[in-house]
Amino acid sequence: MKKNFKKVNAGIIVIGNEILSGRTQDLNVSFISKWLNEKNGISVNEVRVIPDVEKIIVKTTNELRKKYNYIFTTGGIGPTHDDITAKSISKVFKVKYEYHPEAFAILKKYYGKNNFNDGRKKMSKMPRGSDLIYNPSSAAPGFKIQNVFCLPGVPLILRSMIHNCAKYLKKGSKVYSDSINLITVESNISRDLGKLQKKYKKYIDIGSYPFFRLGRVGVSIVLRSQNKHKISLCKTEILKNIVEKKKIKKV
Amino acid sequence: MKKNFKKVNAGIIVIGNEILSGRTQDLNVSFISKWLNEKNGISVNEVRVIPDVEKIIVKTTNELRKKYNYIFTTGGIGPTHDDITAKSISKVFKVKYEYHPEAFAILKKYYGKNNFNDGRKKMSKMPRGSDLIYNPSSAAPGFKIQNVFCLPGVPLILRSMIHNCAKYLKKGSKVYSDSINLITVESNISRDLGKLQKKYKKYIDIGSYPFFRLGRVGVSIVLRSQNKHKISLCKTEILKNIVEKKKIKKV
Repeated sequence: MKKNFKKVNAGIIVIGNEILSGRTQDLNVSFISKWLNEKNGISVNEVRVIPDVEKIIVKTTNELRKKYNYIFTTGGIGPTHDDITAKSISKVFKVKYEYHPEAFAILKKYYGKNNFNDGRKKMSKMPRGSDLIYNPSSAAPGFKIQNVFCLPGVPLILRSMIHNCAKYLKKGSKVYSDSINLITVESNISRDLGKLQKKYKKYIDIGSYPFFRLGRVGVSIVLRSQNKHKISLCKTEILKNIVEKKKIKKV
Repeated sequence: MKKNFKKVNAGIIVIGNEILSGRTQDLNVSFISKWLNEKNGISVNEVRVIPDVEKIIVKTTNELRKKYNYIFTTGGIGPTHDDITAKSISKVFKVKYEYHPEAFAILKKYYGKNNFNDGRKKMSKMPRGSDLIYNPSSAAPGFKIQNVFCLPGVPLILRSMIHNCAKYLKKGSKVYSDSINLITVESNISRDLGKLQKKYKKYIDIGSYPFFRLGRVGVSIVLRSQNKHKISLCKTEILKNIVEKKKIKKV
């Protein structure tokens, strides 16, 4: 790591029985991670998927918010009885769970006075002192309190609002990455790759990921570093000393 | 819960920087959860995604294996330098990390004597005393030690071998589920649904999940219980007192 490299990290807490039961495929983790990484220089160090149980939400959030710069939660901020994230996060910070005046006004306007029922009102209840994360899709805002950002579980909605978190984040240094895709199997290159990882230990993380394409087996080698020049040096070595030498086909 | 209901639970640990960076979309959690649920009556209570770092793998596995009946890990059992799951799990159980004779023989046969290089041999190194989880796709077996099952990260391979874990699992009681899909928004039914959840608290978990279909917004109501009869009673009430009364369209 370079001395002036600024590391900022985050954790993600996915709140939802439907993810744990396998009924719903989570699509938010990879999206949030990529967005944090690529747009903000923030790396996600840990993800937890937990059930809709207040005690567990409180315990998990308390544990992770002390460990990482930022925590992102997904799920549980809708209008139904199983949406308990906002209430639970109020307990985390020991503040009142109450109507947020601006959120209340936004939702009242969105639904119209006559259709603003209890479930819809509930979506404006948050921990006292929260900042809103505006939602251009379906109006109901997410919220941020201290270093915890609470977002909805529906991927389309989450994606439409995540950029509204950016102004609250301090950015980390950019991590560059490059990759080489080869038609080979990992066990054919593992030894050479291991040697290179040792050599570049201080600068580069080398990852190796098998893939399948049109019935053929391949390996994607991914180089990640804050030093663009070292990535290019390492890539050249891989191409020359592994790919060319072993006559491996690139894709 | 009925008195004779047998609860068996599990945790999943996804090991892989590529999942944390957002580069790769995890597809194993939902698959394993469903398989455990539907085929074995085992519910997944927690998932963690962690990096390829020995210290963290050891700590996380130690924490979770005491909390749940079974732990499933995915990723990190291939031939490359970043595959450190087997070595880390050896440290969890304080046993030797060594060639498993049967795994060694399987891989030697699969690759042929002349192509059985160090990377390939590495895939037969495991914690001493492990049982093999056979792999019909690409030969390299997963392993089980005490209540920890270690599986590969590539979804196609994992799916082809998970049934080989079944013989080691004690089964839990089956949890039944049924669902009703409605063209409406959650906030239109949240109050009535909340009341029903209170009424059926002892028997049923009612979940409510928004979805989008051909540009229309819908809600999937999911009922889960070990009591089939109660599910059917509750479903009838939802159809009569919410769906019919509010003239909501079903899909």
